[in-house]
Amino acid sequence: MNYTTVYKLLHNDLKSIENRLESVLDTESPLLRQSSLHYLQAGGKRIRPILVILSGKFGNYHIDKVMDVAVALELIHMASLIHDDVIDDAYTRRGRPTVKAKWDDQIAVYTGDFILAKSLDVITNIKEDEVHKVLSKTMVELSIGEIEQIQDKYNFDQRFTTYFRRIKRKTALLIAASCQLGALAAGAEKHIYQKLYRFGYYIGMAFQITDDILDFTSTAKKLGKPVGEDLLQGNITLPVLLAMKNPAIKKEIIKVHAYTEPEVLERIIQLIKETGSINQSIAVTRQYLKKALRILDELPNHEVKPLLQTIVDFIGNRKF
Amino acid sequence: MNYTTVYKLLHNDLKSIENRLESVLDTESPLLRQSSLHYLQAGGKRIRPILVILSGKFGNYHIDKVMDVAVALELIHMASLIHDDVIDDAYTRRGRPTVKAKWDDQIAVYTGDFILAKSLDVITNIKEDEVHKVLSKTMVELSIGEIEQIQDKYNFDQRFTTYFRRIKRKTALLIAASCQLGALAAGAEKHIYQKLYRFGYYIGMAFQITDDILDFTSTAKKLGKPVGEDLLQGNITLPVLLAMKNPAIKKEIIKVHAYTEPEVLERIIQLIKETGSINQSIAVTRQYLKKALRILDELPNHEVKPLLQTIVDFIGNRKF
Repeated sequence: MNYTTVYKLLHNDLKSIENRLESVLDTESPLLRQSSLHYLQAGGKRIRPILVILSGKFGNYHIDKVMDVAVALELIHMASLIHDDVIDDAYTRRGRPTVKAKWDDQIAVYTGDFILAKSLDVITNIKEDEVHKVLSKTMVELSIGEIEQIQDKYNFDQRFTTYFRRIKRKTALLIAASCQLGALAAGAEKHIYQKLYRFGYYIGMAFQITDDILDFTSTAKKLGKPVGEDLLQGNITLPVLLAMKNPAIKKEIIKVHAYTEPEVLERIIQLIKETGSINQSIAVTRQYLKKALRILDELPNHEVKPLLQTIVDFIGNRKF
Repeated sequence: MNYTTVYKLLHNDLKSIENRLESVLDTESPLLRQSSLHYLQAGGKRIRPILVILSGKFGNYHIDKVMDVAVALELIHMASLIHDDVIDDAYTRRGRPTVKAKWDDQIAVYTGDFILAKSLDVITNIKEDEVHKVLSKTMVELSIGEIEQIQDKYNFDQRFTTYFRRIKRKTALLIAASCQLGALAAGAEKHIYQKLYRFGYYIGMAFQITDDILDFTSTAKKLGKPVGEDLLQGNITLPVLLAMKNPAIKKEIIKVHAYTEPEVLERIIQLIKETGSINQSIAVTRQYLKKALRILDELPNHEVKPLLQTIVDFIGNRKF
């Protein structure tokens, strides 16, 4: 089984979520409707809604029970992408112009705010207090992670723990929340959704590290954005941190600025690759995925377990 | 009685709200703590918390009952100010540098997001479903109003209704919500908090129109920002719309751009004033305040009514 198979198996429920997202973002302002639907229509892996559904199956699943949670999480994710693209001055995402590129920074900031407000609107439909608490804490952590990402830019002396804490906040917690809240909203028992939270956390960490690896190893076409963009933006990721253990390489890397010429960037990417730091990063990813699989083992037998296993495999091997 | 007297009478409760705001925004990130406390420490009129408290007195008031509502509303307001200053490229507010000026646009965007996330965190403490719904709807309307403000910039042909709808969303609804939710959270009856909502809506409209008038009539020192800034940013406000009824004046106003020279701007401000549009705008403000007073009359007798009356007077006469 592969990711596409999982996607197809869940197609009906994913389609319902998609429709709901569209109707939530429907507004009388034509500009706001277009700008807020822009990323939704660009597609994407929909990993969060998929995890909400699969985790929900450990409870007394019905799409209606997990709908609000899935929609709220995807909205929070989309809003953060739009604001991130303003901050990173990014012009392409998923192979299409970003909101800030198609419109401008101002529209992008308020579109993000609008989507966040809409997510809050969806959250108010949810009855469980615990869901509210998890979502708000996740949003707070997410925004702290984003600030840290700015602060840590071009900080070539940052520790590994700084990196891991940052990606936890920026990515892993939202994926962990997707697993936890899918199960919680569908009425799964506490020990189940707690395990799913940890499962989500581990695959979330692996997901982000893989993203950081792909910035070096993938192609612009597959990424839907330029290769080496993270490094160019001064985002120090795991492959860079590992490569910088070599002082000579570190010296070269420190020379990278937002206006580095393409040939120079290419050479530095090559240098980083030659240190073996990509393989070491992959090894770290595999450690996290192994932990995720261990949690999966601990979960009660269920027909969705092979699907979650497929997600784990996908994250370990994805090329986009 | 004047506004300062009201402020002093409510001092203890306002101080508690202030302390809670500070503790909510306390975070392990030193940068985020500083940037998010920046506007809080700059002071401000605290009109929203004051209205929450006064409206709350129509119920079974205790500061603890309205605390979360007051804090959430002030946080939403602060977050929107921070994002507005990014959009308007504003360098001073309340006589101090804006977040974007003291740090940068990127920090300002994420600081706003952080404060919004924290407001959601506070909202999760509130039990009443209706409060959640009102707050989320208000946030949605607020962000639509903000997008409209960008879209309507330099649109010299916009209608009066466009202006009124925009300031309703941008300002009046949050002030209306302050009155409504203060009463609701303190357990006031529905017919009471519905009236207070309308009271808040009317004074909110008057508040924003006064703001728009002060942009022309006040001094940079009192405003804490340059005079004529709105017009320079292309924000077409009521005094401008009224002045443009004169085609010759309209022709002059259309020449204003973000890079207009100070002497030219001064001359155009003078032209606008000479049309009498300031006095006409003041008359509109008075209409709204009259409506607010009528609602106040309909409310049951209560010792806070003179205080609300003072707020109405303040909005009609404020110079800052």
